[in-house]
Amino acid sequence: MPVSVAALVERAPGEKRVALVPEVVAKLVSNGFSVMIESGAGEHAFFSDSDYKKAGAKVVSAAEALKATIILSVNRPPTATVAKLTKGQFLIGQLRSLVDAKDLETAAAKGVTVISLDRLPRQVSRAQTMDVLSSQASVAGYRALIAAAEAFSRYFPMMMTAAGTARPAKVLVLGAGVAGLQAIGTARRMGAQVSGYDVRPAAREEVASMGAQFLETSVESAVGEGGYARALTKEETARQQKELSVQIAKFDIVITTANVPGRKPPILVTKETVAAMAPGSVIVDTASGPLGGNVEGSVSEKRVVTKNNVIIIGSNIFAAQMPSAASTAFAKNMTAVLDSIYKDGQIVIDPDDEVIEAMLIPAALKGVAK
Amino acid sequence: MPVSVAALVERAPGEKRVALVPEVVAKLVSNGFSVMIESGAGEHAFFSDSDYKKAGAKVVSAAEALKATIILSVNRPPTATVAKLTKGQFLIGQLRSLVDAKDLETAAAKGVTVISLDRLPRQVSRAQTMDVLSSQASVAGYRALIAAAEAFSRYFPMMMTAAGTARPAKVLVLGAGVAGLQAIGTARRMGAQVSGYDVRPAAREEVASMGAQFLETSVESAVGEGGYARALTKEETARQQKELSVQIAKFDIVITTANVPGRKPPILVTKETVAAMAPGSVIVDTASGPLGGNVEGSVSEKRVVTKNNVIIIGSNIFAAQMPSAASTAFAKNMTAVLDSIYKDGQIVIDPDDEVIEAMLIPAALKGVAK
Repeated sequence: MPVSVAALVERAPGEKRVALVPEVVAKLVSNGFSVMIESGAGEHAFFSDSDYKKAGAKVVSAAEALKATIILSVNRPPTATVAKLTKGQFLIGQLRSLVDAKDLETAAAKGVTVISLDRLPRQVSRAQTMDVLSSQASVAGYRALIAAAEAFSRYFPMMMTAAGTARPAKVLVLGAGVAGLQAIGTARRMGAQVSGYDVRPAAREEVASMGAQFLETSVESAVGEGGYARALTKEETARQQKELSVQIAKFDIVITTANVPGRKPPILVTKETVAAMAPGSVIVDTASGPLGGNVEGSVSEKRVVTKNNVIIIGSNIFAAQMPSAASTAFAKNMTAVLDSIYKDGQIVIDPDDEVIEAMLIPAALKGVAK
Repeated sequence: MPVSVAALVERAPGEKRVALVPEVVAKLVSNGFSVMIESGAGEHAFFSDSDYKKAGAKVVSAAEALKATIILSVNRPPTATVAKLTKGQFLIGQLRSLVDAKDLETAAAKGVTVISLDRLPRQVSRAQTMDVLSSQASVAGYRALIAAAEAFSRYFPMMMTAAGTARPAKVLVLGAGVAGLQAIGTARRMGAQVSGYDVRPAAREEVASMGAQFLETSVESAVGEGGYARALTKEETARQQKELSVQIAKFDIVITTANVPGRKPPILVTKETVAAMAPGSVIVDTASGPLGGNVEGSVSEKRVVTKNNVIIIGSNIFAAQMPSAASTAFAKNMTAVLDSIYKDGQIVIDPDDEVIEAMLIPAALKGVAK
């Protein structure tokens, strides 16, 4: 019997993505999987039940989908859903085990194989095709820039017309990870004058390679475990903020992308800085979520207009606002995960596979794999 | 005494522009004008009363501003406002005399000098710096494309990542006037795969010069008076629609820009075509207003989602959605108008000035000037 794989309707608020798309379903089916999709799962990402059927999936109820051997999920499913999984099943997705692993540990204790992609060892080159953090950050960075362009009251590119010349928008991107570099690239493409900043020293070169200027401050070299920016010391944070503040206030558009997974995001733009910005300026905070954000005064999933008419757009799920692209990339990442655990028509977890081991709950929680 | 110029709060629904911006106020003041701004006139375009004061304007009440010799206005002011103007005053702006000239004729009969920019003879090269239709269409074309990018669920550029390649968005721009060409340029800049179409034969070359492909149909050569596309015959329209329909349905994004000033816009996208488009496709109708639009089912100032999940965004004042850029360009156009009627500290209408004559109400209505 073929191994069954299922994707459910994502039930997190504001979530529009889906873990499988028709294009990928067709590929899985041709690789020997049987695929089930909960009815309506792709609706918000513009994939209809009939698209999935045409690709070879069975469109089923949630209860039916939950019987599949492998459940793929963008987010951690609700507690009640995770609780329904039984021994021998697999739960794979961006399960936010860094924020709260309780449900996942309970499932794992029952014999469910839980693979939490937010623990992917991103430096291993073989892991890149599975990197949902990267694929979703790429969408988020692009999308954040589009949101800024939409909220901005002027052109991004320089415009030379009979009536005179309009200067290009000045865009600053704080944080030069995948999302930040994608935002820089998009802003450059649109003709803006772009600067970038990151505490990691390597970022200087990356920012420059995208054709943007690097913003100078005296706070440098803060690489943490796993390639993320490490949390700064208090003194460093204060100094960084002070120096950045002076410079930030001169930009038309500021995009912040400093996410430290599972931790409160660092404040990069204080309310004093926001107050010093020109009316009509736009700040997009891609770290704005339940744990806070990079910008004082940003509210997750809201557009805030300050007293001095600065527009602050906050969300930490910008990828969900471009659900077709984000879901397609996510689903492709999922096929890479499946490829590495699917051998001769069977699912086999190889204990020597450092990539999968690093994401296995509960082993990953105990630091078995680095 | 210096000639006084004033800009009022624009009172049309959805209007966020203003006829004067601080940068231009400073220039007028240095040229010898005294400038009055109705308090709050620049608010929606992010120009504060204090910005205007710093530039040398007096911030006043509406009643006070209406006493100025010259009233500049983005739109035709409300009937009650126009009625307050008296002999010797000037009203200059995009006064929509092509749609309804009654209020303007009444004012002119009393001795108000009314200059309606929508009658600008656009082919006269000296008129280009005054061309508000062009400057506002440029903003609208850019803005329409940004609105499409914001509503679209996928990337515009081709994206090559570890997880695979995303194809570029396919964008079609119908109508290759200023707005259409600006939309094409913006879409190209953002990395989309762009096609353009217009019934005017000259458009083929213009579309190609922007790096876009020209969509082929058998309906050609429809240049009307003043360089606008002329209204097509019934037979031509039917044939054009049939041929376009087949092609349009294949695009991800369709921007329509076929405005014939003062007339009902031609339907370019029928409801059958919309029904044939893929879910998640986006149509932006920049002709959608009280007289109709280019797209069946578009609703002015609304975002419509059809049964087959096509998103239709309709507005004929996209320029007002980017009010800082639009107002700045408009105000610069106004200085060009003022330059041509201001000599030695006085306002003089030269009867031999073909550009001004063409816009003077009621002379322009009688076809005195071509």
